Amino acid sequence: MNSSKYQVIVVGAGISGLRCATLLQKAGLSVKVLEANHQVGGRLRNHKFNNGDKVDIGGQWVGPGQNRMYALIDELKAKTYPLYNRGKNILRHKGRLKTYVGVIPRLPVWHLIQVGWLLWRFDSLVKTIDCAAPYENKHAEKWDGMTLQSWINKNSVSETARKVFALGVSAVFTVEAKEISLLHALFYAKSGLSLDNLISVDGGAQQDRVHEGTAGLCETMALGLGDALELNAVVERVSYQSNEVEVKIRNQEEILKSDRIIFAIAPNQLQRLQFDPPMPLAKDQMWQHMPAGSCIKCVAQYEVPFWRELGLSGQSVCLDEDILINVSFDNSQKGKTSGLLMGFIEGKKAREWSVKSDADRKQAVLASFAAFFGPQALNAIDYVDQDWSKESYIRGCYAANFTPGAWTEFGVNLRTPIGPIHFAGTETANQWYGYMEGGLEAAERAVNEVIKSLGFY
Amino acid sequence: MNSSKYQVIVVGAGISGLRCATLLQKAGLSVKVLEANHQVGGRLRNHKFNNGDKVDIGGQWVGPGQNRMYALIDELKAKTYPLYNRGKNILRHKGRLKTYVGVIPRLPVWHLIQVGWLLWRFDSLVKTIDCAAPYENKHAEKWDGMTLQSWINKNSVSETARKVFALGVSAVFTVEAKEISLLHALFYAKSGLSLDNLISVDGGAQQDRVHEGTAGLCETMALGLGDALELNAVVERVSYQSNEVEVKIRNQEEILKSDRIIFAIAPNQLQRLQFDPPMPLAKDQMWQHMPAGSCIKCVAQYEVPFWRELGLSGQSVCLDEDILINVSFDNSQKGKTSGLLMGFIEGKKAREWSVKSDADRKQAVLASFAAFFGPQALNAIDYVDQDWSKESYIRGCYAANFTPGAWTEFGVNLRTPIGPIHFAGTETANQWYGYMEGGLEAAERAVNEVIKSLGFY
Repeated sequence: MNSSKYQVIVVGAGISGLRCATLLQKAGLSVKVLEANHQVGGRLRNHKFNNGDKVDIGGQWVGPGQNRMYALIDELKAKTYPLYNRGKNILRHKGRLKTYVGVIPRLPVWHLIQVGWLLWRFDSLVKTIDCAAPYENKHAEKWDGMTLQSWINKNSVSETARKVFALGVSAVFTVEAKEISLLHALFYAKSGLSLDNLISVDGGAQQDRVHEGTAGLCETMALGLGDALELNAVVERVSYQSNEVEVKIRNQEEILKSDRIIFAIAPNQLQRLQFDPPMPLAKDQMWQHMPAGSCIKCVAQYEVPFWRELGLSGQSVCLDEDILINVSFDNSQKGKTSGLLMGFIEGKKAREWSVKSDADRKQAVLASFAAFFGPQALNAIDYVDQDWSKESYIRGCYAANFTPGAWTEFGVNLRTPIGPIHFAGTETANQWYGYMEGGLEAAERAVNEVIKSLGFY
Repeated sequence: MNSSKYQVIVVGAGISGLRCATLLQKAGLSVKVLEANHQVGGRLRNHKFNNGDKVDIGGQWVGPGQNRMYALIDELKAKTYPLYNRGKNILRHKGRLKTYVGVIPRLPVWHLIQVGWLLWRFDSLVKTIDCAAPYENKHAEKWDGMTLQSWINKNSVSETARKVFALGVSAVFTVEAKEISLLHALFYAKSGLSLDNLISVDGGAQQDRVHEGTAGLCETMALGLGDALELNAVVERVSYQSNEVEVKIRNQEEILKSDRIIFAIAPNQLQRLQFDPPMPLAKDQMWQHMPAGSCIKCVAQYEVPFWRELGLSGQSVCLDEDILINVSFDNSQKGKTSGLLMGFIEGKKAREWSVKSDADRKQAVLASFAAFFGPQALNAIDYVDQDWSKESYIRGCYAANFTPGAWTEFGVNLRTPIGPIHFAGTETANQWYGYMEGGLEAAERAVNEVIKSLGFY
């Protein structure tokens, strides 16, 4: 059997894997990047509408504190523009619409106080978390031993406040509050500075968009890698000793060899690979406890962003069960005349709606937009939705969440290399876990580990 | 490429898969069984000591209510014998030994009342559960939204009672109480009749052993299957349409075809397979939420069962942190002169001790036995431990547990076939989920589904 030899193989051509490869090449190392899919980008992707306009159907936002992202955007000569955030936001509650400005919807004052209290109380716990080792917090066992739902129940008396908070949870974590521990929620929020920051637009995690989409960043990095990048390369087996890795790719005779390997893929994907020797319990069972979230991203295209003329921002929050979309945004692209409304289906709803027909889902999404912005929203000229659970090499979005108890049982091993095998990807990040920025931080850390272990500094 | 065609392919030659194949053959269908490992048995296995004696290092017990197991044992002309359960049990607490008889250790009366109250309260909730659909219980959302740990904290005031209960939890579920929901715990207990039943010996789930080991049952069934069984057959990809399945096996050119396929493997293994088309969210993400438990089974062999002469049963419960083994049993085989002490390392401890050296683990296990039964326990003539997390095609034991929130999000899809793909294995059982009996129930159900869907009745 033939074999090619590299200093480092990188598995996964999402933003983290591509950043790893770029940094390794800059350091003068020979690199091969293996991507299972026929395209780069991982959980970042552009969709092209019939009229040629593009839209992000994966991760799309950058915001303050994501310094690596802004630097990369500069480096790749891309540009950002702010999410459209003028006019009034909409709250739909008990079938009635109200408008408001800012992050917290306009609710009766009693509920508002409750929501404010929950946010304040949560973020006061967030402050105590060390993202490098949340399992070392003095309350770690207690907080990891209770669900976020239990914490919400204990700290809120108003059903409406609970609903608003739960809605924020599913928008941030793409799961229900019953599925994650308080500790994971606190870690995740701290990793993105605060829960308040994660749900904010101006000055928060939803502040800026990237011209031509975030997937464009990946495509530019991929171009820079040239022949080092191989698409449609499904890794089937990985054999390793202390300083040697052998990789078997589906339908390829040739075995690839390297001194080190970096995996920049989601935990549920790592778990599916066959390693020889098998991964230790500390990795394999950890990955078994890191299921991906459930999210369908839906975008409707209109002739123009008609809601702007009505003085509306395109942002809405809906507490009513009869409406599919709970949260929406104006996703129109700068420099285009068409208007885009974007909404997420998340957590429980994503599970219900994943199996419905494309036509049913489109109808329910447009009906949701119409409930917020009027019947004009039914006249979409184009529509797309992206169910990330259906992608064989992704299987869920935005990110993996540790299940309750798993941070304190397995978290200490999150980033630990196994022999010549190193781990990048946003789920190994300290800061901005689950975000593109986290993918870049993880890439830097993994590349530094590899370069150091190879004796290059 | 060549191809062979069968009516049904069964993947997995554990007790459930072998039972499926046997039933299908009896019904006159052409069957092929594919087993990834070089031996049958799945999570059942015999170890042969140097002197030739065998011992179960996987699932081993049968008890009242497991009618299919007793019938199978009869059918295969095997025999059972009761676990040795005479003499006094030992409790080690705060460094001191006490003896007791029965299931509940002898504790100060205040703690005893607490433990009794917890067991009674838990089993009173268990009674309300319908194992076929635990997610339909009127308290399902609440109980699935809280961890078992939260429930224990809420219902116990004594730290000792909490410890005793937690010890029972890790012995039954092989995880910590923080990792599962109250609903999962209730379902699992109801599935095995009651928690009281699951922790009992005489009249309970630990009542009987099988002569020559439970793995012997699998070997006998395997013999009956003849050429229909193929070992070392690692399924890599499964393509399917409504009435056709194609299976690609590692390192084999030939593609196997069938009308139906039954998977009788653990959820974490199912998740690792490549399906074309991909499994829907309802299956793939469900499996992502069903991690395997953590368990190392340890057996020391002695010239004779010396503890019996001391009037001891070999059973012990240990509440002290300085001792590795929390629960032990006399695992001696009927008809052999040697004595066997068996202990489990479970949950958190299994994770800690999985990475230690074989010698360290042996030493700590023997030291535990010595702490219970005196220094004679250090003079083992042979020793074995089995860490199921290290088996590539198993990856954890005893069974998978649903993570908090997962029953109510995904449980409804547990047994649903996907086109020509059906699911057996103990993790799809109604009754005795996680036990051998559950594997047999699941086999019957899956085989009935297949026969019906093929129009044979």
